[in-house]
Formats: sequence, C-alpha cells, structure tokens
Amino acid sequence: MAIVGYSIIEFDGENVVLLNSGSIKTSKTDTESQRLLEIFEDITTIIERYSPDIASVEKLFFFKNQKTVMAVAAARGVLMMALERCGVPAFEYTPMEVKQTLTGYGRADKKEVGEMVKIAFNGQELPKLDDTVDAMAIAICHTRGLNCDCKVLKV
Amino acid sequence: MAIVGYSIIEFDGENVVLLNSGSIKTSKTDTESQRLLEIFEDITTIIERYSPDIASVEKLFFFKNQKTVMAVAAARGVLMMALERCGVPAFEYTPMEVKQTLTGYGRADKKEVGEMVKIAFNGQELPKLDDTVDAMAIAICHTRGLNCDCKVLKV
Repeated sequence: MAIVGYSIIEFDGENVVLLNSGSIKTSKTDTESQRLLEIFEDITTIIERYSPDIASVEKLFFFKNQKTVMAVAAARGVLMMALERCGVPAFEYTPMEVKQTLTGYGRADKKEVGEMVKIAFNGQELPKLDDTVDAMAIAICHTRGLNCDCKVLKV
Repeated sequence: MAIVGYSIIEFDGENVVLLNSGSIKTSKTDTESQRLLEIFEDITTIIERYSPDIASVEKLFFFKNQKTVMAVAAARGVLMMALERCGVPAFEYTPMEVKQTLTGYGRADKKEVGEMVKIAFNGQELPKLDDTVDAMAIAICHTRGLNCDCKVLKV
C-alpha cells in the first residue's frame, strides 16, 4: 500500500505513446486512513489532469500474508471507487494474463516482461520502479484488445 | 459488502441515546466499483448530516474466504478514507473486544450481546438487522472509554 504505480498511455490504433508514469507514494508514518485519503486525492488529480477513456487495474488473487491482502484490497477499493466516481470504466487483469499477452508465456519473469515493454515503447529507457513497469505492461496489454484511439490509465 | 450497518449515538457522560441507525444497502446487480461508490456517497451524507466527533469501526481479522476478505477490506478502506476526508477520527475494535466490554466475556453469543445492548438503550426494541445491533454494540463499547460528551458514528 506504500506505493501505487501508475502509467498513462495514448493509443492511436497502432502506436503506443507514454504520456506520463509515476507512483503515488504515501508516508509510512501516516495512519492507514491518511494513506488511503492521499491515494484517493492523488488518483483523482491524475484522472482530472489526463481524462483517460479507460483504466486498467491489476486483479488481486491469492496472498500469503493476510495483513498485506487487506491493505492492498483497501487501496484497490479506493482506486476503483475513485475511477467510478470520475466515470472512468476499469478493466482487470491478473499478472499471468499480462505476461501471456506481452510475451506469449504466462510465467515469464520480470526481465522478459521489461524487454517487451521496452520494445512496445520504441526502445526508450524504462523507469526505475517495478510498479511503473508493471503499469506500462498492463496498459499495453489492455490496448492489444482495442481497435480505436484511446487514452488509458493504469493503476 | 452488500450491507454496511451503521449507528449514531450521543453520549452525555452517563447516558447513551440512539440518534439513528440503519444500513447502507448496495445492489447485487451493480459492479464492485459502483457499490463502493454508493458506500462512499452514503457514508459521506451520513457524516455531513450528523457531524460525529468520532467513529468506531470493526477491526477485520482472519477470514476463510479470500474473495470475501477482499470485498470487505475494499469497503472498509472506502469507509476509513471517507471518515478521514471529513476529519472524523476512527477507532477500531475486534468483535472479541466488543463482546468482552459489553458482557465481560469475549466469546459471548449474539443473544447475550443483544441483551446488553438493549439494557444500554433503556430496554427499547432492537432493530432487526444483526449489522445494526453490532454497530450499536461497538458504539456503546467505544463510549465506555470516554468521559466527555460526544456523538459517535459506528460503521
């Protein structure tokens, strides 16, 4: 819950352009409620700034740590609600679906996914945070199923 | 996630008065995002109407069903964020803490808790929904630790 990676891309039916990417960081010294409010306010600002047509959100599944799953599900709930509130339809993908779409192999590692993301974005240097690369991968994954121009927000 | 019970009580240092209680019901045919938005909007309306000084929220812990825990954690995240956004401090209790405070026994059953809630509210008829009775129990539980006048929202 400390970091929410995001990425905004524009798709013209053929090419994918990265408009912005980054992460919402919340302070570890803040309470859970304060951190959720920061996430809500920051994602709302991002949505208002870029007016995405659709959003793509990573689907949650099994977590070993019960405490982690609750914090992540809470943050995800706030994100989904903020998107709905701004009228942005959200689509969900599991990490395996993303890997399958990008590399053709559902169990591909981080490096392989990173290579495919780099190719899709015409070889430009990848951001340092894994979350942001994940966001770019999911945004690309989503555009593969589209045949119209659109702006995609991935959180 | 279909139902969020709530209860607003006023405490004058000695007596507890029930101002309102009810539940936020969301439609099963709505998407998860739509339901989270309904919860956000309804709780914000309730907070604005009653201006509670503090809120008391049931603490989540172990759930067997991974899917249920995510939906509940998402709804709880939206509630915590909405309270923070309106400047209402939230306190958490586990069901066991609530039972212990009300009946002196952490494993008390629904009926025993209900009896103690009824006594605290001067014998008035209890609402039909278990969620609302739980909300009343937690609100009472919270006021036991207070020695000042205040209005408490329990969700």
